[in-house]
Amino acid sequence: MGLLQDLQWRYATKKMNGKVVAQEKVDYIIEATRLAPTSSGLQPFKVIQITDPELKAKIQPIAFGQSQIVDASHLLVFAANEEYTEEYLNKVFAYSERERDLPEGYSNDYKNMLWSTYAKQTPEQHFHHAAKQAYIGFGLAIAAAAEQRVDATPMEGFNSQELDELLGLSKLGLKSVTILTLGYRDESSDWLVNMKKVRLPMDEFLINYN
Amino acid sequence: MGLLQDLQWRYATKKMNGKVVAQEKVDYIIEATRLAPTSSGLQPFKVIQITDPELKAKIQPIAFGQSQIVDASHLLVFAANEEYTEEYLNKVFAYSERERDLPEGYSNDYKNMLWSTYAKQTPEQHFHHAAKQAYIGFGLAIAAAAEQRVDATPMEGFNSQELDELLGLSKLGLKSVTILTLGYRDESSDWLVNMKKVRLPMDEFLINYN
Repeated sequence: MGLLQDLQWRYATKKMNGKVVAQEKVDYIIEATRLAPTSSGLQPFKVIQITDPELKAKIQPIAFGQSQIVDASHLLVFAANEEYTEEYLNKVFAYSERERDLPEGYSNDYKNMLWSTYAKQTPEQHFHHAAKQAYIGFGLAIAAAAEQRVDATPMEGFNSQELDELLGLSKLGLKSVTILTLGYRDESSDWLVNMKKVRLPMDEFLINYN
Repeated sequence: MGLLQDLQWRYATKKMNGKVVAQEKVDYIIEATRLAPTSSGLQPFKVIQITDPELKAKIQPIAFGQSQIVDASHLLVFAANEEYTEEYLNKVFAYSERERDLPEGYSNDYKNMLWSTYAKQTPEQHFHHAAKQAYIGFGLAIAAAAEQRVDATPMEGFNSQELDELLGLSKLGLKSVTILTLGYRDESSDWLVNMKKVRLPMDEFLINYN
């Protein structure tokens, strides 16, 4: 087996059966997300794991009533940094220097160059950049779930402002960008499960400059 | 072996040795990218595969001289749709209906709902959304390369406007968002190869609402 088979197996599950995903498998999926590469190693996003049934019930109307929110055993909310700050960069590079046994300040030239670029940008630009990094992790979480044969629904259909308020993300400097629900498909009542997977043909998807 | 081991193996290769990656492996990586899920199945991005040495040499200064641009055998440029149009949505849903043997117009209600949302947004909002979808594919390409033991450098450090001009992307309605270089590490002269992989500790990366 390999990634291509995993990706052929997976689909955006529309109806889940309520069965609980083993925490070991969820931990694996989160670990794959944590290992995602990000621009300059900034990791400007966090994963919020939700299993509490009452909280899931409160999220369901925020996600336009989608049933997977309550039928999935775990929700992973991906939340990106609202903006970059010099303090955040200082913290990330200081941690990296310690982890790599490098002298304090070793990364200063690079860090200052990076901050000189970000300092010219708006918080909105920072957030868009951070959100894209979160989506690299989102892609890896989707791959990890498929490998573990855990069904998942990538979900952008929710009111992010309301979710941020419910989860108290603003005081953490975060904004929700996407959700991955984790659970198991209900084959008998999922309209999508037997539909053909449709993707652009390769000759439309790929442009060659050889 | 599995995804976690693959992700532990990979790193953002800083120096490549010029060895050519077998096309079969590159095709695998591109196929994983093509299979990436995207919002409403719109696949609002394309992959541009570049192997031509002269073209790579022209791209190197646009990417601040980074050596991987010429030492990698293949560059994959990820380019997102500049905006969504009703025509594009019509095309995507008509294709999906044909592929799934559904009656023509089967998806009209959903498509019209979707377009009513996008029609209220600016092209810039469309582009940010499309770029995030491209990053899901980018994440899967990174996973696929690691699985195939192909070294890769995720690269945002380039002048996207200049690259778009060089590749003629504007006339295709596309803007470059990121690059993945594919090749093999030069262990003897890559400063990063033996550095510890640094990621936020799990208790900082993950927030639990159990």
